[in-house]
Amino acid sequence: MVIPGKYLIYLGEAATRVSAKTGLGLVEWRPDLCAGQWSTGMRSVDLGVPEMTLAQALVAGARTMVIGVAPTGGAIALGWVAAIVAAIEAGLDVASGMHTRLGSIRQIAEAARRHGRTLYDVRYPAREFEVGSGRKRSGRRLLMVGTDCAVGKKYTALSIAREMNRRGMKATFRATGQTGILIAGEGVAIDAVVADFVAGAAEWLSPDNAPDHWDVIEGQGSLFHPAYAGVSTGLLHGSQPDGLVICHDAIRETIDDYPGYPIPDLRECLELNLRVARLTNPEARCVGLSVNTSGLPAKRRAAYLQDLAERFALPCIDPIATGAGPMVDFLGEIYPRSAGGISLSASPAATG
Amino acid sequence: MVIPGKYLIYLGEAATRVSAKTGLGLVEWRPDLCAGQWSTGMRSVDLGVPEMTLAQALVAGARTMVIGVAPTGGAIALGWVAAIVAAIEAGLDVASGMHTRLGSIRQIAEAARRHGRTLYDVRYPAREFEVGSGRKRSGRRLLMVGTDCAVGKKYTALSIAREMNRRGMKATFRATGQTGILIAGEGVAIDAVVADFVAGAAEWLSPDNAPDHWDVIEGQGSLFHPAYAGVSTGLLHGSQPDGLVICHDAIRETIDDYPGYPIPDLRECLELNLRVARLTNPEARCVGLSVNTSGLPAKRRAAYLQDLAERFALPCIDPIATGAGPMVDFLGEIYPRSAGGISLSASPAATG
Repeated sequence: MVIPGKYLIYLGEAATRVSAKTGLGLVEWRPDLCAGQWSTGMRSVDLGVPEMTLAQALVAGARTMVIGVAPTGGAIALGWVAAIVAAIEAGLDVASGMHTRLGSIRQIAEAARRHGRTLYDVRYPAREFEVGSGRKRSGRRLLMVGTDCAVGKKYTALSIAREMNRRGMKATFRATGQTGILIAGEGVAIDAVVADFVAGAAEWLSPDNAPDHWDVIEGQGSLFHPAYAGVSTGLLHGSQPDGLVICHDAIRETIDDYPGYPIPDLRECLELNLRVARLTNPEARCVGLSVNTSGLPAKRRAAYLQDLAERFALPCIDPIATGAGPMVDFLGEIYPRSAGGISLSASPAATG
Repeated sequence: MVIPGKYLIYLGEAATRVSAKTGLGLVEWRPDLCAGQWSTGMRSVDLGVPEMTLAQALVAGARTMVIGVAPTGGAIALGWVAAIVAAIEAGLDVASGMHTRLGSIRQIAEAARRHGRTLYDVRYPAREFEVGSGRKRSGRRLLMVGTDCAVGKKYTALSIAREMNRRGMKATFRATGQTGILIAGEGVAIDAVVADFVAGAAEWLSPDNAPDHWDVIEGQGSLFHPAYAGVSTGLLHGSQPDGLVICHDAIRETIDDYPGYPIPDLRECLELNLRVARLTNPEARCVGLSVNTSGLPAKRRAAYLQDLAERFALPCIDPIATGAGPMVDFLGEIYPRSAGGISLSASPAATG
């Protein structure tokens, strides 16, 4: 599944930034992919890209209309159907991260068939996978893991991949969830894969690559989550990461929506993830912590990260507050041959 | 999914016991469910139940024809189609653990529709599941875990459940794979569930029950398997077992089909399974080991089990050689309130 760009971001009547978070993610991480936005409400949110009609979007190079709204429950609203059909009739493909499949709505399915357009339901895998092989692959891999869901794994992975690319390193963000897939234009919604094939799907997602290439893989769930730890385990085994980044929310006390389940101790989280990871990559190590510190008083955030960095002797970032620089610096130190670009020629180990 | 009995076991031209292992499992564990067998070859294997025609099977109470052959690859052979259609026309439902869905073959699908019969593809879940809740349920649960796939988890669970029932204890075998489902007449092929819902499916499989009732749950995979550990993790979390049984093959050295992956040390296997299990049931403990000792010289088997029992201070059985008695004895000692029947009234703790 590779979704053709550029994108026209459909916002419908979304009035808040939270309800338009898929669109916001696209504009933040892939401005190059975003031709413009299409809103239909009187007070629609503005993503900061040009508002345009379907005809204008085609002229601006749009090839796919992406549903940029993310309502709770993930249903396609009835009010969107006419707009989606109009986009198809104008010649656009349509991509959606909704739970409702685009093709399950008769008017949409018929319009796509009539006009030969493709519907991308990124929440559902578009292919079948093999079972995991456990075979070692070439290239380097980083995987985001964490103390819970929704602790910044996607944001951290995107930040690291962007920082690597900025420094001229070879790096690819690998998406494992629907918003990540829309941002990357490809990927696998790993939690929607049939259980037997999760490790195999993760292997497929980060294939053999150049020795100095980094796959920066978006994580899912947590080994400490009572519903999703199986997904996290399969992703960890299939990814065979060289480096793990522990993602965490500084003020969360219990697993989101599971009040009986405490957030694990960071040391325990690190240790169990390494233990599981080393089944398929005995060289796996933790390369840093990424913490959402926005819940802390502003003046305490730097000290919190500093304290963690000392306790773990690892770089500790908040990707929004500090950026991913310190973590990429550290990767250059511990994997000098993979650092690429300027760092590579500056590193004695790279010539050894 | 509850498959109506009795069963007519279809053997086709299967000539060996290995190729008829699904049928053999049914005859061994559910003779009460087996009306008879139907073989079509000149040298077909004999399961030891009456050979019968479709008409005779109906008279004998058969309501479902079960495919008792288990060919490598799991495809429905073309030669079976006429027999399956004939069974449907005679008034039987059809159940299959094959990878090929019964309904994907046009003649079979049309016959079922025409005659109003049900097709059971037990390898595929017949319903959707919720995500796991992590909520504690009433009743007791045993889960088979192990050092690899195919180390006797199903056989051990069936042996324990049968021994419990023989003693008058309340116990239900809970099937998580296709052969187990055919034996139980119901269950969930847990490795075919979408990854997000594995823990939820395991919760559904062993619902709230009487405090002295045991669910004896067939395990799948292994935490040390590079492809299937995610399935094992979700099953472990959703099952919330009070007791774990470690299943093992005495002579296997590497994971089946994964020569680069050694079979884990038994102590390490026990310890990691307990650690994972205690996320959703902090009271989880290991209640014994079940080892397939058939690969050892006959005269060494008893000493092997004795040595393990001393090292772990736990009952160690080979369900074929020793039966499950020692393990059920031990459960009666450590969970006296749940032992039921005679043990209950004889136990001081039960009246406390």
